[in-house]
Amino acid sequence: MADPRLTPLPTPCLLVDETRMKRNIARLAQHADQLGVTLRPHLKTTKSIEAARHVLAGGTGPATVSTLAEAEVFAEAGIADILYAVGISPDKLDRVIALHRAGCRLTVLLDCVAQAEAVVEAARASGIAIPAMIEIDADGHRSGLTPDDPELIRVGRILHDGGAELSGVLCHAGESYNVVGRAAHAEFAETERRAVVEAASALRAAGLPCPVVSVGSTPTAHGARDLTGVTELRAGVYVFFDLVMAGIEACSLDDIALSVLTTVIGHQEARGWTICDAGWMAMSRDRGTANQRVDQGYGLVCDEAGRLIPGLYVKQANQEHGVIARHPDFDGALPEFAVGTRLRILPNHACATAAQHQRYHVVPETPGAPLLDWPRFGGW
Amino acid sequence: MADPRLTPLPTPCLLVDETRMKRNIARLAQHADQLGVTLRPHLKTTKSIEAARHVLAGGTGPATVSTLAEAEVFAEAGIADILYAVGISPDKLDRVIALHRAGCRLTVLLDCVAQAEAVVEAARASGIAIPAMIEIDADGHRSGLTPDDPELIRVGRILHDGGAELSGVLCHAGESYNVVGRAAHAEFAETERRAVVEAASALRAAGLPCPVVSVGSTPTAHGARDLTGVTELRAGVYVFFDLVMAGIEACSLDDIALSVLTTVIGHQEARGWTICDAGWMAMSRDRGTANQRVDQGYGLVCDEAGRLIPGLYVKQANQEHGVIARHPDFDGALPEFAVGTRLRILPNHACATAAQHQRYHVVPETPGAPLLDWPRFGGW
Repeated sequence: MADPRLTPLPTPCLLVDETRMKRNIARLAQHADQLGVTLRPHLKTTKSIEAARHVLAGGTGPATVSTLAEAEVFAEAGIADILYAVGISPDKLDRVIALHRAGCRLTVLLDCVAQAEAVVEAARASGIAIPAMIEIDADGHRSGLTPDDPELIRVGRILHDGGAELSGVLCHAGESYNVVGRAAHAEFAETERRAVVEAASALRAAGLPCPVVSVGSTPTAHGARDLTGVTELRAGVYVFFDLVMAGIEACSLDDIALSVLTTVIGHQEARGWTICDAGWMAMSRDRGTANQRVDQGYGLVCDEAGRLIPGLYVKQANQEHGVIARHPDFDGALPEFAVGTRLRILPNHACATAAQHQRYHVVPETPGAPLLDWPRFGGW
Repeated sequence: MADPRLTPLPTPCLLVDETRMKRNIARLAQHADQLGVTLRPHLKTTKSIEAARHVLAGGTGPATVSTLAEAEVFAEAGIADILYAVGISPDKLDRVIALHRAGCRLTVLLDCVAQAEAVVEAARASGIAIPAMIEIDADGHRSGLTPDDPELIRVGRILHDGGAELSGVLCHAGESYNVVGRAAHAEFAETERRAVVEAASALRAAGLPCPVVSVGSTPTAHGARDLTGVTELRAGVYVFFDLVMAGIEACSLDDIALSVLTTVIGHQEARGWTICDAGWMAMSRDRGTANQRVDQGYGLVCDEAGRLIPGLYVKQANQEHGVIARHPDFDGALPEFAVGTRLRILPNHACATAAQHQRYHVVPETPGAPLLDWPRFGGW
């Protein structure tokens, strides 16, 4: 049963199931094709050049990132069309310019006059028509202008008239993470679509360009049925998926490609606890399933080969201790694990769990082939 | 008001106030002296050689760690007496032996027969009398044997008779994090003390050695009034402190030496939100104040110089977005922050927030002196 390739790995460590990952990547690529939009994958989940090569099908973009550090690493690796999808602050524009000078078309995101003025000033000073997207708020989730906000035209005009490149509008319906089922995600996808299409129309009606109309989140990207008027789809966590996505039925448990390999280090028999070495440092402090229909604690438990063991979860976590216990929803028989037993834990949130680690140990698609070692990076 | 030394730092990034850190270190060192016990600081919070030099007052130990990676880095840096305070698994003993061969006295922790047998086997095979402590459970928090458990003597005898070194007993009353105030922490310190002293007596009555009697957590270490029978005190997060510790009155807000420097990147005026670039990737997903008397969200907000701004907190966080909003407990006037404004966020949990970063930018005690750059490390 034990996989001899995993034996030398010190625990806790991060495993990727390449078969599942490739299936996840192919599924959304096909869906985007069917919808007639360009997929611009978000690389913030994986933060790995090797994973990016899979996600981008060996190409040089388009891609989305969440930090300038990601943009710099991926640009260095040859990715030439990157959207930095977090509102730009003026102090970061030097690095944006440097990326352009290094040959990467980096698009920035903004939603206010102060940002637009800073981008225009940097464009004038550098002679680079920095591409900028205006963020649109469809669901009150976070940032962005509502499509009917007069600031939209004002911001667009500052960019366009000031020597930046007004590339288009972008929306991320983050509230789609809080609804369950494909139909509900399809509704949010339509909310996203309507918001950006309305914003694009408003800009165009004001005589401004709006070539790119971008939407996306993992739930809406998979739920979308019709993206008329949209040109581009973004998603990130779908590459690995996780328990939060399974909890809202954006994937099944069998789609989850990321897990943490852990070793049993003790027991508290009277309490029915098995202690393992995957604490929150290995899993992250993310408790994204806490408010879902089923709270999965700090993760679900699989055997070393990745087969789910029904009835167990990581009930609590300290820095380097995970407490595996009976899930409150389960009353069947449970296995016992001797000290030294290796298990895998499926994470709540792939972005957060992966960020706790410095590399992926990839179990390759080819049976019996050696593990692959993919470094990942962090920082800003 | 702005500190020109902070201007070149890309945000988000981690700041340490050296003055506060040194004061925190000195306070507990003095308290341990008064109690007549050896302080064995836990280095898992800082994971930095430079910080360790401060905490260990330039010496080579004793120290506590939570991973073998920490033990290896600190041993390489000359720390020669290290306790690995997480239950040992058999597969990790090769690295324990390697550390001994490299000149580091590494003590392991265990609480069951299977672990003791594995340690004894490794001791025999290597010819190294691996020092081992038995973990004692005082409060049902996590791991350990209760002092009256007959397994205690059995485990002790396996170690002692089998060629390992039975170094003593250790307790961590983690439940002390859930009670408020110095008096409550003093009670938990007494609970810890009684448990280990009883366990040490039981071992000695059985003819076994028990030279080290070790207790500690940041709340109990500061709360302890009398440690008769105890030889060693452990604590970690006190070096930086955080909002969780302030929430249980183990420190004041003015003791918190760690913060995240962030830049304002936008607003949602209708909702009263200021958006900054310190999301959960910079703050961690730790919500340790969520169940305290005052929920501080993802952190409290200070100006760039570190002065608390009353009435604000980081209400919610996405991966690279923090939403600063009015704290529900506050009804006074609030300042406004232009895009580009720099702020500092005090974290819920220093161990978790620091782990999201690769370096500390240390604001030195000497006014106007250049910032110090202390790398930190992670991994296992």
